[in-house]
Amino acid sequence: MATACAVDQKMSLSNMRSRSRRSYTLFAYRESLPFGDIGAVPVDRETFLAALSNVASSVAAVTAYDLKRDPFGLTVNAFASVSLDPQLVLACIDLQSNTLQPIRASGGFTLNFLSEGSAHIASTLASKDQEKFGRIPYAMPESPKAGPVLVDDAFAYFECELAQVVEAGDHVVVIGLVTTGSVLDDRKPLVYWRRSFMSIH
Amino acid sequence: MATACAVDQKMSLSNMRSRSRRSYTLFAYRESLPFGDIGAVPVDRETFLAALSNVASSVAAVTAYDLKRDPFGLTVNAFASVSLDPQLVLACIDLQSNTLQPIRASGGFTLNFLSEGSAHIASTLASKDQEKFGRIPYAMPESPKAGPVLVDDAFAYFECELAQVVEAGDHVVVIGLVTTGSVLDDRKPLVYWRRSFMSIH
Repeated sequence: MATACAVDQKMSLSNMRSRSRRSYTLFAYRESLPFGDIGAVPVDRETFLAALSNVASSVAAVTAYDLKRDPFGLTVNAFASVSLDPQLVLACIDLQSNTLQPIRASGGFTLNFLSEGSAHIASTLASKDQEKFGRIPYAMPESPKAGPVLVDDAFAYFECELAQVVEAGDHVVVIGLVTTGSVLDDRKPLVYWRRSFMSIH
Repeated sequence: MATACAVDQKMSLSNMRSRSRRSYTLFAYRESLPFGDIGAVPVDRETFLAALSNVASSVAAVTAYDLKRDPFGLTVNAFASVSLDPQLVLACIDLQSNTLQPIRASGGFTLNFLSEGSAHIASTLASKDQEKFGRIPYAMPESPKAGPVLVDDAFAYFECELAQVVEAGDHVVVIGLVTTGSVLDDRKPLVYWRRSFMSIH
């Protein structure tokens, strides 16, 4: 079904392009195309995921301690820098993630930017394995509110104090104020694209 | 100064690593490293930007219409998928962006995922040029709340209804409910990394 859908889209695109290219000359790109005619449909789950799978992104590990100081963490590619002044970053955390409660309880997290070559760490942190931090090298953060710092697998990290928590559908957007952090080395980032980890050249 | 800073960080990292690697065997990665000794400092603006510049990201164009139906848009790499059910995405918009008011006024936007080869479109949309849409091919969206669809330069797009607006420092996080959209073709994404546009291989 996904394949058939893709074929339909290409045919539609072909129609759309030939028509729109012709029209651009006449209407200086102001034409309104009749989307009903070109196959645009409400986004189904497959289309939503297919579009996003072609979005290349770096990979980060969001880590936090719970109140017993046990380490938690998960792998995310839905993160972003938000503000330069003050320095804010965000990450989208699944409501089902075990790391969400530690982030709320400690009032902070660490955003670790994973390096190329650390796909195994990304996979480990993406698992539900309760003992995953037994196999990951990490150091304590400077701030008591922040999470483990992945000193061997991140090229940089930001320790964050929780600034805002925004519930959004099946995820929570955590916005963190960067309180400290560092560039650890000049390794390239680990990249996730088309459902695979890769390096960038 | 940035160079000296980087050298310091590498020296610190070297110290940290030799110590931490030795300790991992003994303490099973549970060691708390004294960050004060390894040169971690509150993040200055240069470090913040240096860390983020090594984060590879895809590039999107957020577009919207104002109430006069004039098209607006900007280039962002701070965007993310948020939720699968319901389908939500977000983008971080500079408070100074001309596109912010049209997004608020129309109650929506379109997130266009730019394709490799469209770096010139990304640059055009990143400018303050008032006439930039005169040089960009686009089509009208299906939804009256959404923005122009960059049919020639995006491999996919999502039309969004504004679901939440979160003020965060010098930016606003706009969270959009995806109401329609499409995968247009199978071109690779345009990627921004180390302050340059590039393709992915």
